[in-house]
Amino acid sequence: MRGRFLSLEGGEGAGKSTQAVRLAEALEARGLHTIITREPGGSEGAEAIRALLMQGDVARWSPHAEALLFAAARADHVEKKIRPAVEAGSWVICDRYVDSTRAYQGAQGIDDSAILALHAFGSKGLLPDRTFVLTIPQEEGAARATQRDGADNDRFAARDHAFHAGVAAAFERIADAEPHRVRRIDATGAPESVTARLMESLADLLP
Amino acid sequence: MRGRFLSLEGGEGAGKSTQAVRLAEALEARGLHTIITREPGGSEGAEAIRALLMQGDVARWSPHAEALLFAAARADHVEKKIRPAVEAGSWVICDRYVDSTRAYQGAQGIDDSAILALHAFGSKGLLPDRTFVLTIPQEEGAARATQRDGADNDRFAARDHAFHAGVAAAFERIADAEPHRVRRIDATGAPESVTARLMESLADLLP
Repeated sequence: MRGRFLSLEGGEGAGKSTQAVRLAEALEARGLHTIITREPGGSEGAEAIRALLMQGDVARWSPHAEALLFAAARADHVEKKIRPAVEAGSWVICDRYVDSTRAYQGAQGIDDSAILALHAFGSKGLLPDRTFVLTIPQEEGAARATQRDGADNDRFAARDHAFHAGVAAAFERIADAEPHRVRRIDATGAPESVTARLMESLADLLP
Repeated sequence: MRGRFLSLEGGEGAGKSTQAVRLAEALEARGLHTIITREPGGSEGAEAIRALLMQGDVARWSPHAEALLFAAARADHVEKKIRPAVEAGSWVICDRYVDSTRAYQGAQGIDDSAILALHAFGSKGLLPDRTFVLTIPQEEGAARATQRDGADNDRFAARDHAFHAGVAAAFERIADAEPHRVRRIDATGAPESVTARLMESLADLLP
C-alpha cells in the first residue's frame, strides 16, 4: 500500500522541525511507518547542494541560480528518497518543500509559473498529499529564530523584515489557491496543541 | 565598445583547451583583450557546482538533476563573468557552453527544448556570437582523452562509445540548425593549422 507525503511550511521560527518530530510520533503511535526529511537536502546529493545554498554571503547567488539549485536538490531528493519511501508504504514528513521555493524565490521576483516549470522538469511536479502552512505572528517567529544557535542563522534567516513579510504573503496565496492540498495551521500556543491541530487536519488521509 | 563571446565545443580530446589558449594568443596579437574561461565553472559559485558535477560516480545524478545543476552553474558564470566582460569590451573564449549541455544531456534523453528553457530562465538565453564545434574522428578523440592525467577522467569521459557517438551526433544537429552562429572546424592535423581555421572562421567578427 502506498504511503503518504506530507510537507510542513512556514516562515522562520514557526516550529516546523519540532512539529515534524511530534507529528511523526503521533503517526507512529498509529502504527504508520514514518520518515522525517528536510529541504534543501534530504538525500546525499541534495545535502551537498544544500551546503552551497545555505552558507556564504546573502548575495552569493542570483535568485535565478538559486531557484535552479533548489530544483536540482529537490530532483535528487524526490528521486532517491521521497518517491521510493512513499511507494514502499512510508509516511514521509518533509520540513519545507516546493512551496518554500515558491515563497522565498517568489519574494525575490521569480514568477511562480517558472518555479513550477522547474519543478515539473526536475521532479515530475510531485506535490505532497497534504501541506501544512504553520502560521505565527511574524515578530514571534523572528524572536524564536534569533534564539536558535548559529547553525540556523543561514542566508535566508539573515534577510530583512520586508522580505519575510513577502514570504508570509506568498504562503497565504498558495494556501488560498490550493485549499484541498494546503492547510493553514495556527502554530501559536503549546506544541502539543499544534500537533493535535495537524492530526485533525489530516484525519481524512489516515487509514 | 562591446566585446565578443566565443565558445569552443566538441567531444573529449578534440583539443578545445589547447585551441582556447592559441586562439586567445591570436586575438591578443591583434590588440584585443581576451579572457579564457570554461564550463562547468568559470566563476566562484559555478566552480563549486562543477565539483559536484564532475566528481563521484557516473550515476551520481539523474539526467534531470544534472541539467538543472549545469543551468545553475551557467547562470552564475554568465552573470558574474561572461556578461560583464563582454560589456566591458573583452573577447571571451569559453571552453564548452550551453551546446555541451544540449549534446551531453540530450544524449541522455533530455529534450533540447527543455534545456533551452532552463537556459532562458537562468541566463536569459545568452548565446555566443560564434561557436566552433571541433571535429575529429571519435577514436582519435578517445585516444587523446585517455592519454591525459586523472583530473580529466571525469564522470563524462567515463561513458561508453555509444554515449560519445550520441554526443557527436547532437553537435552535428546543432551545427546544421544554426549555421550562422555555429561552425564546424576540422580539428585534425597540426594545432597551428586548427587555429588558422578558427581565425578564418571568425574573420567577419574581427574589427
